[in-house]
Amino acid sequence: MDERIRLRLDVSYDGTDFSGWAVQPTRRTVAGVLVETLDLVLGAGAVTGLTVAGRTDAGVHATGQVCHLDLPTLAWREHQGRLLRRVARLLPGDVRVRAMTEVPADFDARFSATFRRYEYRVTDAPWGAEPLRRRDILAWSRPLDLAALNVAAAGLVGEHDFAAYCRRKENATTVREVTRLDWRRDPDGILVATVQADAFCQAMVRSLVGAMLTAGDGRRPVAWPSGLLARRERSSEVTVAPAHGLTLVAVGYPDDPAEYAHRADRTRRLRLPVES
Amino acid sequence: MDERIRLRLDVSYDGTDFSGWAVQPTRRTVAGVLVETLDLVLGAGAVTGLTVAGRTDAGVHATGQVCHLDLPTLAWREHQGRLLRRVARLLPGDVRVRAMTEVPADFDARFSATFRRYEYRVTDAPWGAEPLRRRDILAWSRPLDLAALNVAAAGLVGEHDFAAYCRRKENATTVREVTRLDWRRDPDGILVATVQADAFCQAMVRSLVGAMLTAGDGRRPVAWPSGLLARRERSSEVTVAPAHGLTLVAVGYPDDPAEYAHRADRTRRLRLPVES
Repeated sequence: MDERIRLRLDVSYDGTDFSGWAVQPTRRTVAGVLVETLDLVLGAGAVTGLTVAGRTDAGVHATGQVCHLDLPTLAWREHQGRLLRRVARLLPGDVRVRAMTEVPADFDARFSATFRRYEYRVTDAPWGAEPLRRRDILAWSRPLDLAALNVAAAGLVGEHDFAAYCRRKENATTVREVTRLDWRRDPDGILVATVQADAFCQAMVRSLVGAMLTAGDGRRPVAWPSGLLARRERSSEVTVAPAHGLTLVAVGYPDDPAEYAHRADRTRRLRLPVES
Repeated sequence: MDERIRLRLDVSYDGTDFSGWAVQPTRRTVAGVLVETLDLVLGAGAVTGLTVAGRTDAGVHATGQVCHLDLPTLAWREHQGRLLRRVARLLPGDVRVRAMTEVPADFDARFSATFRRYEYRVTDAPWGAEPLRRRDILAWSRPLDLAALNVAAAGLVGEHDFAAYCRRKENATTVREVTRLDWRRDPDGILVATVQADAFCQAMVRSLVGAMLTAGDGRRPVAWPSGLLARRERSSEVTVAPAHGLTLVAVGYPDDPAEYAHRADRTRRLRLPVES
């Protein structure tokens, strides 16, 4: 019997002490720690095909990351009820598996995804970031204007070629559809950008945030970030905002499981490199 | 000219990497780091009489700590406008001075205080604490019942001899007035205890929380924590909850500055050891 089933894992992590998601031989990564722990519980090699929705960079956090993996049906039936708690006990505190759900074999965490949503947190308090939240909040030394940030943001919403904000990869389009981009100021004074798109190219969210912040503090006109969309290549004038302000908060999938395969086919056809 | 003025400092810290508030020769403490930084900006020895509202234990956090200190009026006049930002740049990220305010000379951060308010955070999610919040949230492995926690809490409100919950000190009363003690469950599932009193004896909040948690998870009757108030000495049955769930969130002072001195006189007369 080598019948296998597919699991969806909902994962949170504090990215501070990780060299990003993807397994690297000598570095501590989220995928590396996850596989190590699952190997301990289920036996080495039981888990195969770990695939993630957003390959977050070093230092980026997640509260709503999604990945899938396959494991022998028998192992799942044996451990099912206790697996979540056993994994929780063995994992280090900076990564948590919040849910494990059996899904159809054509669910693909990466290619079936319909959107990724990120949040970026910034404080412009003169005294800096609240210590208990400093791991996911960027301290900005100039006052930021919420209205200016939102004008800058509005010009970036929609389907555009984000070449100015992307590290170009061969054979990969830099056209993306940003379906949401706005800023709010929370009651504690923290500015939060919410950015949602079908997919992002590498460091795109942090590049967009970096450009908007220079408009928000008055050093650039509010129309400058959207003006860069006319460029056909990465702009050296855009400063990539630091990783630690960024958190992947949600990944969307079709409501109807019958759409998992169709969505994945479409994504592959468009050659969307669906990285963060 | 050695005229001096008194400053009130509003301070936040992540207690994880501090051996508590109070200066200790070979350890990293919040007061130690603060004085070191102020010495750098204002010159060694300029600041005197640093006094804190709540001498928090190792690992305990603060978002609303208050202390006072004295410094030469001339130094204050010279640095006033820039002092907050200069201190922010020099302090490590795990401690922040949120405000510096000139106060009357009879303001005493410790003795003029009318109340201290703490919050204690617990999660009973089977997968543990959200990684980005794990520094100030205790993970509890059993389900907790909000109603049971609140019945247990209600029995502890009021003026009582909290000897069962105190480490006894000579010549110090263990009578305290707990003016507020209740639990809520936040939208993210986190249970938060709010505890307010005129003052606390050492480890009292964590002892109260430890007792309530055993009622909340059903291992003790809900009347057990208040039943312990009949004891005349520290109860060995009470487990002190871990430090990292606890945060000092506010310290209250009289609205009328004319009351600062009266309040301080009264506190000293009652021999209240106003530690956390």
